[in-house]
Amino acid sequence: MDIAKELLAGSRLALSRAITAVENEYDEAVDIMKKLYPHTGNAYVIGITGPPGAGKSTLTDKIVKEYRRLGKTVGVIAIDPTSPFSGGAILGDRIRMNELTLDEGVFIRSMGTRGSLGGLSHKTADAVKIMDAAGKDVIIVETVGVGQSEVDIVKAADTTLVVVVPGLGDDIQAIKAGILEIADIFTINKADRDGADKLNVELEMMLDLYQDKLEWRPPIKRTVAHRNEGIAELVQTLEEYYGYLKETDKLTERRTERVKAEVLAMLEENIGRYVTRTMQSDGEFEQMVQQIQKREADPYTLVADLLKRLLK
Amino acid sequence: MDIAKELLAGSRLALSRAITAVENEYDEAVDIMKKLYPHTGNAYVIGITGPPGAGKSTLTDKIVKEYRRLGKTVGVIAIDPTSPFSGGAILGDRIRMNELTLDEGVFIRSMGTRGSLGGLSHKTADAVKIMDAAGKDVIIVETVGVGQSEVDIVKAADTTLVVVVPGLGDDIQAIKAGILEIADIFTINKADRDGADKLNVELEMMLDLYQDKLEWRPPIKRTVAHRNEGIAELVQTLEEYYGYLKETDKLTERRTERVKAEVLAMLEENIGRYVTRTMQSDGEFEQMVQQIQKREADPYTLVADLLKRLLK
Repeated sequence: MDIAKELLAGSRLALSRAITAVENEYDEAVDIMKKLYPHTGNAYVIGITGPPGAGKSTLTDKIVKEYRRLGKTVGVIAIDPTSPFSGGAILGDRIRMNELTLDEGVFIRSMGTRGSLGGLSHKTADAVKIMDAAGKDVIIVETVGVGQSEVDIVKAADTTLVVVVPGLGDDIQAIKAGILEIADIFTINKADRDGADKLNVELEMMLDLYQDKLEWRPPIKRTVAHRNEGIAELVQTLEEYYGYLKETDKLTERRTERVKAEVLAMLEENIGRYVTRTMQSDGEFEQMVQQIQKREADPYTLVADLLKRLLK
Repeated sequence: MDIAKELLAGSRLALSRAITAVENEYDEAVDIMKKLYPHTGNAYVIGITGPPGAGKSTLTDKIVKEYRRLGKTVGVIAIDPTSPFSGGAILGDRIRMNELTLDEGVFIRSMGTRGSLGGLSHKTADAVKIMDAAGKDVIIVETVGVGQSEVDIVKAADTTLVVVVPGLGDDIQAIKAGILEIADIFTINKADRDGADKLNVELEMMLDLYQDKLEWRPPIKRTVAHRNEGIAELVQTLEEYYGYLKETDKLTERRTERVKAEVLAMLEENIGRYVTRTMQSDGEFEQMVQQIQKREADPYTLVADLLKRLLK
């Protein structure tokens, strides 16, 4: 089966297989991506992140339903924070139980953090392109925004929605501050809880503090996802921000930055693979490692030398 | 001032400056690391990780005090989860208030997650080497183990202590499962809380479940850090595990793996820097990016071509 061709013809099976190929680094993956690439660049990519327990899954489901109500097709990539070791059952269960999967206009896929996170952000970027080529109007990348790399993943989005929730510990508040950098829009989810007003004030104060550093002051919305409250308004804000990105050419800027980062990441990954393959086959790498371990040489000098030899 | 020379002579100022040089990528950093490298490999490197709110900071302080009681010198690298944006005040405050900083036998340094996390794990590895060369007997790397990259950072340790705590949400429990892979020792901190027994049972069940995948079954200790309960026993376990690593040659294995990963990361980082510098200077990179963005070419083909040209 020509996966790319079938996918472009609208096959869900092909869509699923393409992502699997990318996720497991099958040989055909690069060929598929080459064929699909010309058909990308049309979807609105939304990153949703926030601390554990913020209710991102429920919120994502409601946002998807609202976009469906507006007649848009949606792809969801849920980055699974659990390890392959644990089977990543948590998200898996959620998705199996999810009635959205019965909707032909929605495609949900979870990706685990197996292997390097760098690898995952690359694979996520490819999965986004695959869903984009498959014609999804909106693509949502959902991840637990606690680690820098998880944050890096949503950085690849056109718009990043940061979900916060009242009544989390100080450490988590600290992390919240960490993702101020990438927030285009905030939503206080579970806004019916005590502390929603306090959190709102804190956020506004934080935004005041960094006002001069911010090109765009992220609006702070309120949602109670499980009761579907504030979802329509939130999606409207997401669409308004998309409009702003287009008018101001920021969309092009962001996508240029994304391409740069992707090309560089690909290059580094491929070179890493090349070096391990070739050098390991002729045992040179092992030798280097041994010299370093015996303190006969330092890695900094050896790497510099190796680089000189590698590069024309 | 010859930072490396002064550091090896025992200067705390030089130690601090060396880490600053690495953190800010000053030109002299590589030279310093080259000079220090031959003097590394003697410290016991302990990674401490766990979800936010597990009380890692307090636990780390108590472990340091216990090691001091045993007559060992200690270095602490606290990975600050907050962004440069937020000033990383949280850990900063903790450290300023920390009476340990008055102890000549202890050196505490926090490093922020500015720049790429990959960059940070590299910088953390260098900071460990710097403290190692400075003669610290034990080096503790403390990080919030919520993201894969934070986990990657502690993977660079000889021993990883995973701190868990009763009464955290499901999402966080899921993350806990994620770090089963790297846990050498567990401690249930705040063990005086309700749910400590339940958590203990859950952990044991999880370990039973992965029994066959585990070379070493991580012991589960209990601590109440703020009351200094269970700390001496925990440090004893850390030392027993160090003994086990030495006897079984696992220490050498782990350090070999670490060197391999470091060399590869360095290589990729340097090549990335080389490409951006040279290609950006002659505008080739920009050109590539534009072609890709206009969908005139796909990144996969261009990167493959570039690689062919780059490599001899």
